[in-house]
Amino acid sequence: MEQNEKRCATLVIDIGTSSARLLVIDRKGVICTKFQKNYPLYVLNESTAIQKPEEVMEKIWEMLKAAGEWLGQNQMEAEVISVTGQRSSVIPVDEYGSAMTEAISWQDRRAAEICLEYKNEWKKIYQITGMKLSPVFSAPKMVWLKKNKPEVYQRAYKLIGFQEYVIYQLTHQFATDHSIASRTSLFDIKKLEWSEELLLIFGVKKEKLCSLIPVGGIVGNTIDEVSKCLKQRTSIPVISAGGDQQCAALGLGCLEHGDMEVNSGTGAYVIGLSDVPVLDKKMSVNCNVSAIPGKWIVEGAVLSAGKAAAWMNEQFFPESKGDFKEFSKVLEESCPGANGVIASTSFSGKGTPRWNPSVRAGFMGIGFENNKGDLVRALLEGIAAELSECVKEVERVVGGNQKSILAAGGMTGNPVYCQILSDMFQKEVKKPKEMEATGLGAWISAQKTLGNVDNYQEGYERYAENGEDLCYEPDPDTEILYQNTNKLRNYYEAFYESYEKKEAEL
Amino acid sequence: MEQNEKRCATLVIDIGTSSARLLVIDRKGVICTKFQKNYPLYVLNESTAIQKPEEVMEKIWEMLKAAGEWLGQNQMEAEVISVTGQRSSVIPVDEYGSAMTEAISWQDRRAAEICLEYKNEWKKIYQITGMKLSPVFSAPKMVWLKKNKPEVYQRAYKLIGFQEYVIYQLTHQFATDHSIASRTSLFDIKKLEWSEELLLIFGVKKEKLCSLIPVGGIVGNTIDEVSKCLKQRTSIPVISAGGDQQCAALGLGCLEHGDMEVNSGTGAYVIGLSDVPVLDKKMSVNCNVSAIPGKWIVEGAVLSAGKAAAWMNEQFFPESKGDFKEFSKVLEESCPGANGVIASTSFSGKGTPRWNPSVRAGFMGIGFENNKGDLVRALLEGIAAELSECVKEVERVVGGNQKSILAAGGMTGNPVYCQILSDMFQKEVKKPKEMEATGLGAWISAQKTLGNVDNYQEGYERYAENGEDLCYEPDPDTEILYQNTNKLRNYYEAFYESYEKKEAEL
Repeated sequence: MEQNEKRCATLVIDIGTSSARLLVIDRKGVICTKFQKNYPLYVLNESTAIQKPEEVMEKIWEMLKAAGEWLGQNQMEAEVISVTGQRSSVIPVDEYGSAMTEAISWQDRRAAEICLEYKNEWKKIYQITGMKLSPVFSAPKMVWLKKNKPEVYQRAYKLIGFQEYVIYQLTHQFATDHSIASRTSLFDIKKLEWSEELLLIFGVKKEKLCSLIPVGGIVGNTIDEVSKCLKQRTSIPVISAGGDQQCAALGLGCLEHGDMEVNSGTGAYVIGLSDVPVLDKKMSVNCNVSAIPGKWIVEGAVLSAGKAAAWMNEQFFPESKGDFKEFSKVLEESCPGANGVIASTSFSGKGTPRWNPSVRAGFMGIGFENNKGDLVRALLEGIAAELSECVKEVERVVGGNQKSILAAGGMTGNPVYCQILSDMFQKEVKKPKEMEATGLGAWISAQKTLGNVDNYQEGYERYAENGEDLCYEPDPDTEILYQNTNKLRNYYEAFYESYEKKEAEL
Repeated sequence: MEQNEKRCATLVIDIGTSSARLLVIDRKGVICTKFQKNYPLYVLNESTAIQKPEEVMEKIWEMLKAAGEWLGQNQMEAEVISVTGQRSSVIPVDEYGSAMTEAISWQDRRAAEICLEYKNEWKKIYQITGMKLSPVFSAPKMVWLKKNKPEVYQRAYKLIGFQEYVIYQLTHQFATDHSIASRTSLFDIKKLEWSEELLLIFGVKKEKLCSLIPVGGIVGNTIDEVSKCLKQRTSIPVISAGGDQQCAALGLGCLEHGDMEVNSGTGAYVIGLSDVPVLDKKMSVNCNVSAIPGKWIVEGAVLSAGKAAAWMNEQFFPESKGDFKEFSKVLEESCPGANGVIASTSFSGKGTPRWNPSVRAGFMGIGFENNKGDLVRALLEGIAAELSECVKEVERVVGGNQKSILAAGGMTGNPVYCQILSDMFQKEVKKPKEMEATGLGAWISAQKTLGNVDNYQEGYERYAENGEDLCYEPDPDTEILYQNTNKLRNYYEAFYESYEKKEAEL
């Protein structure tokens, strides 16, 4: 029996924006092997960003074949495929699931004007969907398509995202889970159904959307072609595990109301788990369905995080060609408070809580005694300060004051950054050694659905035994220091925003 | 007769802080040859900066010998020595003109506390001397000496500066001109005499100071040793031509009331010429005696100019090792307004008009679309903006609104910087091709004293015929652009200063 269990593999497919990953994970939560394939995001101009669904699917077929080979060699068998991925992209498909045009990426901004046309409805939209309207989300993209490519829109059998698209190719079934649906701006996060009111407002017919299933639900079983790839005789279930940020929160162990995680990638997110859908008068955070059925996530966003570090690395260390060695070295030569240098890091505008696209970054308090190490440290402190504001916003709307925050994302590879997070939050920051939070979230989801574990807690604990968290303790001495630097940063931002506002009014 | 005139040379000695120069200039104002010798400024710690007078004099003797050789070979004869140089350093000497200790450099800050002790007298001091009290000037240094080296102070026959020291070695006469005296904080700029009131306040006895002569006056004739060096039989007069900034203003052609020049070196100065001594309620500018007898200069100061550019060059272009090639290249890739980046450049505090030592520099308005070219350009625009404030202050107290400003100093070697100055001032900026403004000012002074010219205008025009000014015209399109960026810069500075003030009060 144990022998048998060891041979059972979950295949997790994670459809990212620039690459897809396929993880082979056993029932203990050990990642046995992984595959990764890149594909292009076509950024055609300032507002247009598209992807080719066939290119994405081709890579996934290649990885399935490779996984089939690997499973055979290692005497393992896939018992389920669990799919997670990017959210809010839009692909018009025909009734056979073939893409009729390229996908409008979630990064595409062409629907920005459409959003402004709906300005009077923003409050209502937030009340139903938990999100202010933004060109990032699906509904305004669908309206854009209807307006600009009416023949495509009319002939489209369904308007779907990447997760539904890939799952259809594997199962020939159309379905979307509540977590993915909650990023469309068409989904009622309280009733867990498509909102008739919003379908009317946006003029989108319900039959163009997928049928809904709970997050973690089985969409269908694999078609023969998948079995062939995997060199297995039996068809296996395919699970829609939820959006990538939702899966990451689950994989990191956000299991209870109030649990929080910080994910520092290109942008950065603070996610808090909630037992109830949470709406906020200030509309400063998004509420979506979580990867755990019956729970929600509250999401605060910092728009420039890893991208700001990459910008600085490129400007200050052009010779490093993208590696962060010199960056990390000068960073370590500075100290908390960056010898008086303070950065506000909204290079592409401010996210939570003020959502102001026109503010820009600044460095201040620079004297001849400072060097670029101080500027680099100030940058990371600025990002952490913005995240600290998000943490407070998420705590405000979810309630509570957690002692500990989970951390993930590329930037957490730098221990100085993790310590800055802890000092800025004045909370313990826990970073798992295993970085595949999203994939492990999708794995937990599949184990629960298959009945391999009784609950999500058990799923999390099972794989968590395999590794150990790195734990960063807050230094109480930096608390007052950071309170002071944050005050000056806030002054800067307030004056900058008031200046921008005045300019806009002229 | 013309033959004879061609053979008559003025030797100009310019005693700088890090080097001395000796120029050989004929009666047409052509610089026939020049010599330069470096010597150390000993910066012992944050507040102590000293120089060794014998080391300076040794270099001057070497240059006089070299000049003697050159004159012989070129069949020229020196008819006068005109001396200019750094201001406000203090050297205690015995009655034979020998330095009893090292010189306390004008850059020495040890008298900062002494200045605070006189805080109640600042207004009175300004009313008499035209300058707020500062550790830069001579009187507080003398008080420091009295307090900390009483035996040196008591035994000292005179307390003099570098210009008086060098002139004594050449003539065995002690004298100081009004322009040099006006940087001591002991000189009445209206009465043109030592202030009995201030001598009493600082407790300095008049006999410790040199006797006064008008600027451009002959202190005495050269001693035999000088004639030996120059290989000339006759003794020649030695002129005290005034302080270096005063001579530079004269050399650039500041001849009429309201004429203005901008000198952009390590720090930068705006100097306006005045027919009367000008005092200002706000005490934001200094008024000193000019290099033209019966005229005064009004001086506004920017504390970080070339030094800020050097800091940036070091941080951003470490591989350039001090040359500004890459700096200039990226600068040219940006455009007026620096694509939205705005810098406030008070790396070591703010000078005119607010004199706040605690403010620091900042860069703001930075987005991912910006690169270091924009930061570099923003820096130069920030320095020009500070200078523009100085120009307005000097205009406010001197009166008038000049169409044209003269420019000199190392930074004006960069044509983009000159254009920025013109655009920021919205005035024509004229930069002479010949960069030796200070030396030529001392030359004009000597020609007038010798009667080789009838007036200063004639002296200036005589050498100015030899070269041509580069002229930068203001671009009216940038006027509004810079008005807007200056507004944001002023906001930043005001908020930063109010924050600093609040912090200081806590």
